Amino acid sequence: MASDKSENCPAWAAKDESGVLSPYKFKRRDVGKDDISIKITHCGICYADVLLTRNKFGKSLYPLVPGHEIVGTVQEVGSDVQRYKIGDHVGVGTFINSCRDCEYCNDGLEVHCANGIITTINSVDVDGTITKGGYCHRIPDGYPLALAAPLLCAGITVHTPMIRHKMNHPGKSLGVVGLGGLGHMAVKFGKAFGMNVTVFSTSISKKEEALNLLGADNFVVSSDTEQMEALDKSLDFIIDTASGEHPFDPYITTLKTAGVLVLVGAPSEMKLTPVKLLRGMISISGSASGGTKHTQEMLDFCAERHRFFDRHCQSNTFQQLLQFSVYNKMLSHAAESEHILCVVRNISY
Amino acid sequence: MASDKSENCPAWAAKDESGVLSPYKFKRRDVGKDDISIKITHCGICYADVLLTRNKFGKSLYPLVPGHEIVGTVQEVGSDVQRYKIGDHVGVGTFINSCRDCEYCNDGLEVHCANGIITTINSVDVDGTITKGGYCHRIPDGYPLALAAPLLCAGITVHTPMIRHKMNHPGKSLGVVGLGGLGHMAVKFGKAFGMNVTVFSTSISKKEEALNLLGADNFVVSSDTEQMEALDKSLDFIIDTASGEHPFDPYITTLKTAGVLVLVGAPSEMKLTPVKLLRGMISISGSASGGTKHTQEMLDFCAERHRFFDRHCQSNTFQQLLQFSVYNKMLSHAAESEHILCVVRNISY
Repeated sequence: MASDKSENCPAWAAKDESGVLSPYKFKRRDVGKDDISIKITHCGICYADVLLTRNKFGKSLYPLVPGHEIVGTVQEVGSDVQRYKIGDHVGVGTFINSCRDCEYCNDGLEVHCANGIITTINSVDVDGTITKGGYCHRIPDGYPLALAAPLLCAGITVHTPMIRHKMNHPGKSLGVVGLGGLGHMAVKFGKAFGMNVTVFSTSISKKEEALNLLGADNFVVSSDTEQMEALDKSLDFIIDTASGEHPFDPYITTLKTAGVLVLVGAPSEMKLTPVKLLRGMISISGSASGGTKHTQEMLDFCAERHRFFDRHCQSNTFQQLLQFSVYNKMLSHAAESEHILCVVRNISY
Repeated sequence: MASDKSENCPAWAAKDESGVLSPYKFKRRDVGKDDISIKITHCGICYADVLLTRNKFGKSLYPLVPGHEIVGTVQEVGSDVQRYKIGDHVGVGTFINSCRDCEYCNDGLEVHCANGIITTINSVDVDGTITKGGYCHRIPDGYPLALAAPLLCAGITVHTPMIRHKMNHPGKSLGVVGLGGLGHMAVKFGKAFGMNVTVFSTSISKKEEALNLLGADNFVVSSDTEQMEALDKSLDFIIDTASGEHPFDPYITTLKTAGVLVLVGAPSEMKLTPVKLLRGMISISGSASGGTKHTQEMLDFCAERHRFFDRHCQSNTFQQLLQFSVYNKMLSHAAESEHILCVVRNISY
């Protein structure tokens, strides 16, 4: 593909609600004074890509090019950009813009900006075109880009509430419900933080992956009442990553007094017995994605812990993520395109 | 009634699940070395008394003498008791014993002790008899006993989560769902902390009480969709005191990003839409009663704020609590008995 940015970019896009991807070409704008362009090396694919290409939220803009866990090297730098130079390793996650003037934007929590948050995919940018880029984060030197990509959505989605709820203390116990794109990240972070990690899954088929590939300490089939009851009041925290319908009371029962269940999956309904929350001062807290400041801190943490991650957690490369069944027929625009524009702007970190 | 403690004590007890109270006599033990006896002056009556006399939890021990918001003056002091002298004002709340050797007991959170917590009413004491007393707290001099009584259950039940979740900051906004025994306390504490308080009720009939008697800033009929939508993302906190079945999504929608809904009422089921928690990092947290250390801190706070309470909140005397319809045919053992034994033990505050 030619490197001239005025030419059309090749990508794969869904054209309608079938979600079927087919070749597609689009044009990127020239690099502006606050922009950089990057040469993409890897991109993770998230379940949100699947949902968006199939219009499951009802607001998809077609043609829709999925992909929002993008990493690569800086190829061109705008005149006002001080933070990056050509050749730097960078990543782009879930959003491209926010108001940059509210309490959340000022605190690096742009994802909670109530005015003007624009997501990386499936949004209309300030120039009226479909978004084709996002806020840019530095991938520290020496940290393999293939490992960094899925951190930019799946990683930050579980890392943010883990830090917010102080789930990063060695010796504490963490339950992880579901072992998909989010769940496997939660296991990895839990182990990196020195926690004792129990994986809950509906399927015994995940046991090998949980214990031997990801390094979890314990594996429980959630439909096994005896195993569940044996965990009564034993866990400090739970991260529930399951988006399918499932009961909540059995998990709440496994939490210690003052335990916290963080919900990052999105089933359509949550039903539970209130007295179970009352008796143990149990909290349930939702969380979605994370801000720019926090994303950079996570990337820096992961890079520092790279040796640990590399030894214990071999599954978070793009290729291995593709092994998840729902992902295996998808390709992202990022993986097929040669470059992407990234916005640097006044991010607070 | 004779003051000799070896004689039988008169009280009112439920004899069966009808919950109907009738005269009853029982015997208290002599004052032990860690005991004090008190002459009861007032007692609040709580909805839990109603539930227990009617065996709604399925474990009631009959004859059952209700009442666990007891205040009075010290009448006799055991040989090892250093903290109290005859004539002191004291109060007894919801529990009488705990293991005193776990992380919760050591931190003044005895109510969460997993081993040996014994409630003031409807429990078997260590001597095998039905409990007839409880842990003792000091009512500061000058604070009217009539005001202190309902703090010992209703008060501490809402005060504990308000402190735990930092709901005591002036200028923050608090929603209170339901205006019964718990709800009116939450309004009072909210105003005492300098918060902007909105009362949600199913009944417009509570408006006068909420705004003019309790000093709330705003009153909303929860079934009025327009009023509810006008509060979209406007509240920092909600305390939900309603024990009847009710929807939760409409309240969650009124919370700001990172808002907290504390549940102290106990409907039989809670149903909500998870994505509403995710998008705003919303937390839902249960809470039940509070520990000895916290109870004393609350009593001290209320005594200090007595002038404020006295001016703004005229409804928390025993007589006025009796005006709540569910209470108006009940009398407590405390209000009819002349004395009660209180346990001092090694409480940590």
